[in-house]
Amino acid sequence: MVFWKSLFNGSESTSASKETLFSGDPLEVTGTTYAENGARICFSLTRELDLYELEELCDAVGWSRRPLRKVRKAMEHSFLVVSMWYIKGAKRRLIGFARATSDHAFNATIWDVVVHPDFQSQGLGKSLMKYTIDKLRSADISNITLFADPQVVDFYNRLGFLVDPEGIKGMFWYPD
Amino acid sequence: MVFWKSLFNGSESTSASKETLFSGDPLEVTGTTYAENGARICFSLTRELDLYELEELCDAVGWSRRPLRKVRKAMEHSFLVVSMWYIKGAKRRLIGFARATSDHAFNATIWDVVVHPDFQSQGLGKSLMKYTIDKLRSADISNITLFADPQVVDFYNRLGFLVDPEGIKGMFWYPD
Repeated sequence: MVFWKSLFNGSESTSASKETLFSGDPLEVTGTTYAENGARICFSLTRELDLYELEELCDAVGWSRRPLRKVRKAMEHSFLVVSMWYIKGAKRRLIGFARATSDHAFNATIWDVVVHPDFQSQGLGKSLMKYTIDKLRSADISNITLFADPQVVDFYNRLGFLVDPEGIKGMFWYPD
Repeated sequence: MVFWKSLFNGSESTSASKETLFSGDPLEVTGTTYAENGARICFSLTRELDLYELEELCDAVGWSRRPLRKVRKAMEHSFLVVSMWYIKGAKRRLIGFARATSDHAFNATIWDVVVHPDFQSQGLGKSLMKYTIDKLRSADISNITLFADPQVVDFYNRLGFLVDPEGIKGMFWYPD
């Protein structure tokens, strides 16, 4: 069953795109989806996330815990921070996340892509990535890269990411 | 012949490390080498490079030209900009360059590593990379990555970079 309908349907998202999830800095909420149970999926670019809520999301997919101090710093210095929300009535829940580092000109690298297990296999990871790519492309970034674990290479491939194009290899430094 | 001697030799670089190559912002000049002809190799972290000089360096290795406006922006938003200089008397020449994007906390990605052909095969690329890695490690960045063209994979491998560790794949996005 395709549970979430018409993601990125401009005509449906008009009113919701003016909504704000967070007080304070202006933020963008777009890509709204209307689900069958009346809930919506929203994307936000705010950096004012509750880090404990983010940690809970990362815990849910089994990631190693990281110091919140460093997570906060990484968010501050990411070029793009994307969060995905399940909203039903007055309740909202963080269900997805991605961020990107960048030189703001040529290159961006996407890190920490996560969708809560309760919301996987519904096309939301794809939507999260498309939203992220769209924002990077809007910023005139031409080279979008990432490092993919083996089990998600096919997922990213279907989104247009190529492994080792022209023999270019992703490499990780380890101390001698 | 090993032309450049004792790179990163603390005892020899003490006085030179206090030198400034650029007026204005304070900058760091370290890793000085004393060559047989009295010239020195210095590393700098300044972002105040002459972009035409940088373009000349990139031209020398056959890179495609990029708009200087975007190069300037990329330098401003890089976490680290490393330049390598050949200095003899009052003359100085830009002979190497590397930069890194980062979230300032976990990840850094190194881009645009270049050594002028006149100065290749003398261990200077290795020194440039070691200097760059050292600076990233000093900033407590644990995950240092890059994307390597096929012909330089072995070079980076000798520096401790691994291809696809645990099956992690570097991927590049291309539009559908």
